[in-house]
Amino acid sequence: MDVLEAMLKRRSVRSYLPKAVPRTLLGKMLEAARWAPSGGNVQAWKFIVVRDSRMVQMLRIVSPGMFGEPPAAIVICSDKKRYLELGSEMEYEYMAVADCALATENLVLAAHSLGLATCIVKSFAEAAVSELLELPKYIRPELIVSIGYAMNVPQPPPKLALSEIAYADKFGRPWKDE
Amino acid sequence: MDVLEAMLKRRSVRSYLPKAVPRTLLGKMLEAARWAPSGGNVQAWKFIVVRDSRMVQMLRIVSPGMFGEPPAAIVICSDKKRYLELGSEMEYEYMAVADCALATENLVLAAHSLGLATCIVKSFAEAAVSELLELPKYIRPELIVSIGYAMNVPQPPPKLALSEIAYADKFGRPWKDE
Repeated sequence: MDVLEAMLKRRSVRSYLPKAVPRTLLGKMLEAARWAPSGGNVQAWKFIVVRDSRMVQMLRIVSPGMFGEPPAAIVICSDKKRYLELGSEMEYEYMAVADCALATENLVLAAHSLGLATCIVKSFAEAAVSELLELPKYIRPELIVSIGYAMNVPQPPPKLALSEIAYADKFGRPWKDE
Repeated sequence: MDVLEAMLKRRSVRSYLPKAVPRTLLGKMLEAARWAPSGGNVQAWKFIVVRDSRMVQMLRIVSPGMFGEPPAAIVICSDKKRYLELGSEMEYEYMAVADCALATENLVLAAHSLGLATCIVKSFAEAAVSELLELPKYIRPELIVSIGYAMNVPQPPPKLALSEIAYADKFGRPWKDE
């Protein structure tokens, strides 16, 4: 699937069919995430693929932002230990979030191109997720991606026009395509 | 270009030809960023396209992470005012970075598919960038993307194997593709 088409057609899906996600497709999503850029190529990220049905159910219980009943999820985590070995503590808080989000966008675009539906979840109980996934103290869950086959694909959400979000050279100076 | 191919082939490029980037291509990049997901669809982001050669030069001077002489750049900013109107202050710090990074990944993937080279820059003097771009107090520069035509495309950087970053259901339990 064309990269620009994937970006425009991907929707955040919140209802899923009760149909398992093949392991090979999840592997392709992980491969996409693996190649995301990261600050200083530090790659201080871990991806926990949750497929066990009881684990997914528990994850949903502690994640108010997870809607529907996705058969799978990937929890994107930052690895503070790795970051401190290769980066610096000062930058960790910022870089961890940014790097994990860059990889997450790859995950959801790859999923869409593979016929899967996703939703990025930021609302979850961090301590409960950490306990459920048996995360060491230096691993922090940053984002969760719900994954499945869409029961309903929503209409495109209202989006701000480029004239409302893009400027030329200075803030407030209109950007013009032509 | 295929979305998975774009993710695997995109490189962070740090040397550029002295050749202007057509405005229409920058417009396509912005369109890609516009369709990125954001928490609650808040879209609390602004994109400042810097093309004026003196402005690009000034931006480079205050951004140690900007290498080479890119003919253009996009400064991705969070909009705290919009976020507070539609979201909450507590979530702002986290969401602003994550949302801007999601949009940034769309920018660099779109650029690659359009034949452009990019590099994501996190190291810059925030106050100096804000002054240069005349950003209001509620607009914060989060990331910068250098944009141009590659003089040299680097080899793929060393990447951790999936076995080092992906787990099944719990931390430490090996993920297997098959």
